[in-house]
Formats: sequence, C-alpha cells, structure tokens
Amino acid sequence: MSDTIRVTVWNEYRDELRIPLSGEVYPDGMHAVIADGLSAHADIEVRTATLDEPEHGLTEEVLANTDVLTWWAHVANGEVSDEVSRRVCDRVVLGGMGLIVLHSAHFSKPFKQLMGTSCNLKWREAGEKERLWVIEPGHPIAQGLGEYVELPETEMYGERFDVPQPDATVFTSWFAGGEVFRSGCCWQRGRGKVFYFRPGHETYPIFYEPEIRQILTNAVRWAAPVAGAETRYGNVRPLEDI
Amino acid sequence: MSDTIRVTVWNEYRDELRIPLSGEVYPDGMHAVIADGLSAHADIEVRTATLDEPEHGLTEEVLANTDVLTWWAHVANGEVSDEVSRRVCDRVVLGGMGLIVLHSAHFSKPFKQLMGTSCNLKWREAGEKERLWVIEPGHPIAQGLGEYVELPETEMYGERFDVPQPDATVFTSWFAGGEVFRSGCCWQRGRGKVFYFRPGHETYPIFYEPEIRQILTNAVRWAAPVAGAETRYGNVRPLEDI
Amino acid sequence: MSDTIRVTVWNEYRDELRIPLSGEVYPDGMHAVIADGLSAHADIEVRTATLDEPEHGLTEEVLANTDVLTWWAHVANGEVSDEVSRRVCDRVVLGGMGLIVLHSAHFSKPFKQLMGTSCNLKWREAGEKERLWVIEPGHPIAQGLGEYVELPETEMYGERFDVPQPDATVFTSWFAGGEVFRSGCCWQRGRGKVFYFRPGHETYPIFYEPEIRQILTNAVRWAAPVAGAETRYGNVRPLEDI
Amino acid sequence: MSDTIRVTVWNEYRDELRIPLSGEVYPDGMHAVIADGLSAHADIEVRTATLDEPEHGLTEEVLANTDVLTWWAHVANGEVSDEVSRRVCDRVVLGGMGLIVLHSAHFSKPFKQLMGTSCNLKWREAGEKERLWVIEPGHPIAQGLGEYVELPETEMYGERFDVPQPDATVFTSWFAGGEVFRSGCCWQRGRGKVFYFRPGHETYPIFYEPEIRQILTNAVRWAAPVAGAETRYGNVRPLEDI
Repeated sequence: MSDTIRVTVWNEYRDELRIPLSGEVYPDGMHAVIADGLSAHADIEVRTATLDEPEHGLTEEVLANTDVLTWWAHVANGEVSDEVSRRVCDRVVLGGMGLIVLHSAHFSKPFKQLMGTSCNLKWREAGEKERLWVIEPGHPIAQGLGEYVELPETEMYGERFDVPQPDATVFTSWFAGGEVFRSGCCWQRGRGKVFYFRPGHETYPIFYEPEIRQILTNAVRWAAPVAGAETRYGNVRPLEDI
Repeated sequence: MSDTIRVTVWNEYRDELRIPLSGEVYPDGMHAVIADGLSAHADIEVRTATLDEPEHGLTEEVLANTDVLTWWAHVANGEVSDEVSRRVCDRVVLGGMGLIVLHSAHFSKPFKQLMGTSCNLKWREAGEKERLWVIEPGHPIAQGLGEYVELPETEMYGERFDVPQPDATVFTSWFAGGEVFRSGCCWQRGRGKVFYFRPGHETYPIFYEPEIRQILTNAVRWAAPVAGAETRYGNVRPLEDI
Repeated sequence: MSDTIRVTVWNEYRDELRIPLSGEVYPDGMHAVIADGLSAHADIEVRTATLDEPEHGLTEEVLANTDVLTWWAHVANGEVSDEVSRRVCDRVVLGGMGLIVLHSAHFSKPFKQLMGTSCNLKWREAGEKERLWVIEPGHPIAQGLGEYVELPETEMYGERFDVPQPDATVFTSWFAGGEVFRSGCCWQRGRGKVFYFRPGHETYPIFYEPEIRQILTNAVRWAAPVAGAETRYGNVRPLEDI
Repeated sequence: MSDTIRVTVWNEYRDELRIPLSGEVYPDGMHAVIADGLSAHADIEVRTATLDEPEHGLTEEVLANTDVLTWWAHVANGEVSDEVSRRVCDRVVLGGMGLIVLHSAHFSKPFKQLMGTSCNLKWREAGEKERLWVIEPGHPIAQGLGEYVELPETEMYGERFDVPQPDATVFTSWFAGGEVFRSGCCWQRGRGKVFYFRPGHETYPIFYEPEIRQILTNAVRWAAPVAGAETRYGNVRPLEDI
C-alpha cells in the first residue's frame, strides 16, 4: 500500500452536456469539481474518467492503479457495459478497491450488483431543504463535522431505500417535505469498502460545498484498501491428521 | 399470509443420476429426501422442482405460490438460466420469499446475485468429522438443538468464505482437518430472508439425519414471509408544505 | 414454550399521579392502557406491575413467569433498585425474556445496563408532528402497517441517540422541528431480545392509537422467547484426543 | 488528534507474582512484554499501569491522556473499583478511547459493563493447539498476516461466548480438542472502539509471538480515537418553524 491514495473520479457526463442549467453549474462536468475538491489534499492523487471514453475510461490498467473509485451516474446506467461493471465489482471484492457511489448512481450497475437488491427509493425535485444528521459521530467519515450538515436546496430521496442493512449508517437526512433517508451508508464487500452518499444533484451546486468536500475526502480515506491478510480458495490438504 | 408455509424444494438432480454412490444414497434424488423431512410437519406443504424441467420447474406461477424455496446445486450452476435466477431473486427481494441455500449451492446464480461477492471458499473431500457449534442459542433456527451437531463424515468447507457479513451466524463448524466455517448464515435481502446452510453432500446421507432435518424445518419457519409494511417507490409529492 | 405469551406491563406510575393532565389522559395509569391494548389478543396474557409495589412488583417469581416485559419510566429511574435491575437483565440475557423499552425509559437502569452506553439523546416538548417511517418493511414489528405512522402531537427525541448500533432499525422518525431519530431499534442480548420504541409520552394519548397498539403487539410477539439451543459454560473436557 | 497514539497497557499483575511458572515466563509482568512489543513502533507511545497502584494507576489524568487502553486480568476482577471501571467505560463511550480486552479479561468489569451480557464461555487448560483463522481479510486488524495464526500450546476458550454480536469478527479459532471460538471481535460503543482478543495466557509465552505482536499493534492503530463529529444532548430548540 503506498501512502498516496490513487482516486479515479468517474462521471457519466451527460447531464452537464444536455441540460443547460447543469452545464452552467458544472461547466467542465461534475467530475472536474469532485476531482478538484479531492486533489487539494497531499495524500490524494486524482484522475477522472467518463462514460464515453473507450471502455468508459475504466480499463484493467486504470482499475489496477485505482485505490478508490467514485461513481456519479443518472440517465445512462444502461449504457455501462456489463463487462466493465463486473470488472469494477471484481476489483472491489477481490482487489479491495474502495467504491464511493454518489446520488443517482444508486441505480448504477456496479452498485446494484454489489448490493443484490433493487436499490429503489422515493424521490422529488422540489428544491427543498435537507439536513444530514450525523448518526455515528465516532465514524471516520464524520471527521471534522458539526452535528449536522444543511443543504438549502436539494432533490429529495426518501425511505424505504431497498439496500441490505448497512454495516454503519453515518448520516440520516431530514427533508422539509416530510421524509427521511439513510444518506451515508457503509458496506464491506469482499476485501473492499463501499460508501453510498446521497447528496449530489446535477443542477444544485452541491459538490462545491466545503462540508460535502470534507465528507468525500473523509470517505476516500476510509475506503482506501487495507493490506489485510492473505486469502486462498479451492481444494486444500488437511492441516491435521484425519 | 396463510398459516401453511408453501415450500418448493429445488434440486439440480444430476449427481444422483451420474454418480452411482449418490444414486444409492438418494435413489429418488436429494429433493425427495429433503421434501420428505419437511412434509412431516402439518404447517409445511412441499412440492419439488428440478433443473431439467421446463423453466427449471420455477415458473412465475410456481414462485408466486412459494413461500420458501430451498436450493441444492453442484455441477450445473451455469445451466440455470439468467432469467430464472433473476426471477428467484426478485421474488425474494420484492416478494419476501425465503431462500435456503444448501451446501455447494454457495456458487449458485441466485445466491451469488443476492450476495454480490465471489462466495468462494476452501474445500476437501476426505470424509472427515464436522462439529457444528451453535453460536446464537437464542436464534429460532437453533430451536430444539443441543450445544452442537456432529456429522461423522462430511466434505470440508473452510474459511475465508467470501460473503457479506451475515446478519446472524447461527452455526460455526469445526473440522477434524483443522479448519473452521460459518455454516449457518442469515441475511435479509429486501423483503426476503436468505439462509445458507453448509452441510449436505451428494454422497453422505446428511439429509436423513434428524438434527439436520430439525434445522431445515426451523429454517423454513424462520424464512417464511412476514406480512410486513407497505412500500412505495418513485416520484412522490411532499407530505408537508415546502 | 407455551402458546400464550405472558406479558408483564411495568410502569413507574408517578407522572399520572403528580401531573394533572397526565392523570386525565391516563386515569388508571399508562400501564392500564398498554395492558388493555395487548390483552385484546388471544395469544397474549397480561399482568401489570409498578414501581411502588414491593420489589417494584418484579419478584423472582413474577419474572420467571414473564415472557415479555414492557417498561415505561421517566422521573424515578434512580429509585429502581440495582438488584431488581440486575434481575431483569439476567432474565433477558440468561433466560431469554423479551424487553420492550418505551419512550423516556431510554434512561432506565435495565436499558442502560444492557446497552453499555450513555443512551443520551436530544429532546423538546413542543407538541410537534412526528412521522415514523418504516425502514425495514420485511420486519415482523412492521406487520400490517402502511409506509409510515403519523403522530400529530408528540415530544421530540433527536439524534445522536447514544446506543450500540441496532441489529435492526425498524422505524426512523421525522420531526416537524427538523430532527430525525431511530424510533424502533432491535438488539439481541444473550438469549433475549430488546426493542426500544420511542413514542409514548405521559400527556399525549399515544398508547390509545390503534397503530401504536399494533406495533406494541407486533413487538411482543417478536420479543417472545425462542426455545433455542442448550448452552453450557465453564470448564469442559476435550471432545477429541489431544 | 496527535499523530502519536498514546497507549496505556494495564495489567492485573498478580499471576506473575503468585504462580512460579508465570513469573518465569513474564519476569517483569505481562504488561512489560506487551508494552515492549508496542513501543517498537514510532507512532505508538506506551506507559503501563497495574491493579495495585493507587486508583489502579488509572486516574482521570492518566485516562485523559490515553488514546488506547489494553486490559489483561484474571483472578482479581472483583478488586477493580466500580468507580475506576465506570471511568474507563465513560472514557470509551464519551471520549472515544479505544479498549483492547485480552484473554481472561472477558470477565473484567469494564468489558462486562460495555457488553451488557454475561461474557461467559467454556475453557480448558490442556496446552492444546489453537489456529486462529482470519475471517475478515480486508480488516485492518488482519494487516500483514497469512491465512491463519497457529499457537502450539494454549488454553482453550469455546463457544457459546455470551457477548452481543460483534460489528466485525476478525478471527475465529479452531482448537485441537474440538471447539471453536470468535477470537477477535470488534464493537463500537459510543465514540469508542472495543476489541476483544482471545490469546494471552499467564504461563504460555504468547505475548512474545511476532504475529500476536503484529495483531496487537494493528488493533491499537484500529482502536485509536477518530476526531469525528460534534455531539450535543439534552433540551434543544426547534431548527424549523413548528
């Protein structure tokens, strides 16, 4: 494990090109802004990749050199090839790569494949207020935060969120319209860590918010691979006389 | 929810036909013996289905009338159609059907799809002793058991078992050859329950053992669907003025 | 295990006697109303006990004949004897009795002893609206409910709720004043089950609400002891030659 | 959070003085050997404390300057004052101090208080072989290990181990005499982390073993406090108009 965490920020990069307001808020794409927030830290090294690059920019070589992958997607989840999705999941489960799944990527192929459930939820675009309460103040992803984080205008996601029970639920959101949502969820899958983070819409400038950037930085550090222990599978001889 | 639990016992049913010893131990197939053990109970109603039936015997209609599905498979996991595997998983996650995964079905399509990990493990066929220790004596699947269950001759499965951390680990096995294994693992996936149970080889007469039959009966009762609460997904209106 | 669940409804029974409004809402004490709701069901048999009875009404004999104990307390947690609190916890951990902890009993001795944490939280009495969202619709405690339960006027409890991560979080509350709370939490402790349920103030008529009564009935059935497996502790001989 | 982890190694320090063989194996006490193993690392700063010092060496001032406390105890658990035990638990739950509980300290006051269960188990002193299998190879406490760790001669501890289900079970032990045991268990309690580690008898030279030293070092780093988020409790004003 090197001391530097090598992050690949992946973005579908369609909404910014097709929705004028999204392009105004994120002129170089959300990936540029997310990458900018992370690369301010000396221990993090960032590259980006997008859907329309060959192999979606996620070749074997890129993934082999990625410690943590962040994933934003929305309208084109179906265009991600099954092969690349499997490659991403294998790199998490077998290789220990961290995966940070953002907002509407709850319906992305790799996330659904790693969860095994529908990943469905409720939603509403009404620009309402969200308040993310820290439920686990001793968790590294909550480092440096106050009791809660407020977003003045956001899309709503509401429970029931159809995912396996998280290993830890770091944030739960309150919405002005009356719903709640588990907004920061951690799972171990094989050797790798997965973090789902709810905020991050294509037209609200959420990825510029300092507290959101702090959370993403915390999440990258939490999700970085651990050297861990050796594993072997398959047919084995007995260790004792039988 | 009716008072009767409708169980479908599914079997690949190949080993019994191709391996003479397996056919001797299970002349009508393992499904017949598993079904026989369950149908001794007035609250359980059993049918069977096998790989080589049309749609593997698991039509929409059969699944819609199944509360708990048990699944034994070994050499032909790849012959199960992706469509039927998805149908089984949907019925678990969305419909609340229980799924009991037996022995070498750790590599079956539905189990791998619901887990999201490799489900890999160590194994050895040496007819060694296994002792399943009850780790959670207050769990309904342990009902009526002693401190442990012994199997005099069995195939070994050893850790690391690459699955998401179980919601509850009811049994952990000791093997004479020196390994351990989480042999009875529970997960909630969507509205449904999944139980993985390790024992159950094609040539050892394990499904005739009274304690194994007790555990499978307990597991069927535990995995039966719960009426639960209503769920709605998708676009919703606010419940409060915003 | 008999087919009837023997419930003891325990109440501090001080607020109803000292606060006029509480006495108007609950003229015979909250325990009478909770007991009334449960005893409508043929499978449940109810008795009550209160703080000012000898041994707080919780003698060894009463506890030995209690399958599930419900506990409401508020101002006199310190008056519960350490001995009775230990007796209750032993009956949960060693004997498998279910314990349902209501509202302000988050600070009761048995709950704090079983949790090992401060059990602290935020609160406000402003008669605001609470909406309990069902987070785990496949859980037996959610049986028969809609997507959420609304309480028009209630005391607020807010996160951070300092408890060990629940084994399952069935409900999460939204409050009009801007907070969220894990309002229905399940833990296994030894052989017994613990359920914390947030609603239930001394002056709001919450225990008369049909949906709250449904939840308490569900919780009693969920928390009832399981026959389970034998346990032995202490010095033992080897099971194998060493 | 400083970069150095300040560890206090606590030892009952009675067995080494009363049992000749224990004194031969650990002439300056087990604490000296555990401290020696940890202090080889530049990021760890170690002091020791023992039962017979005033306030058991665990004054408010010592604890306030301790990031991680390791605890070995055996015959004198009852001599630890309730006040010091509470002080230790408060420092874990409220202050985020890590606590590493070793071997026979499963019956220590702080561990039992933090667990809320009996912490009982089976045991046997027969100098048999133990093999600790790594169950979670992606966990930081497993860093740098092989598939398992072998101890040629050790005391046996067997399941049922009466503790709340761990947040993660890093090791499960196989014993030659036929038992299994969850030998490395992690729990979050309030802001702090707790790790129970089974090996470590008073007469077997276990704390000299390089792999055991590696695990203790890993555990100290894992259990070190996280800056985390702010928490507030008690009466609060609404954040929204109600």
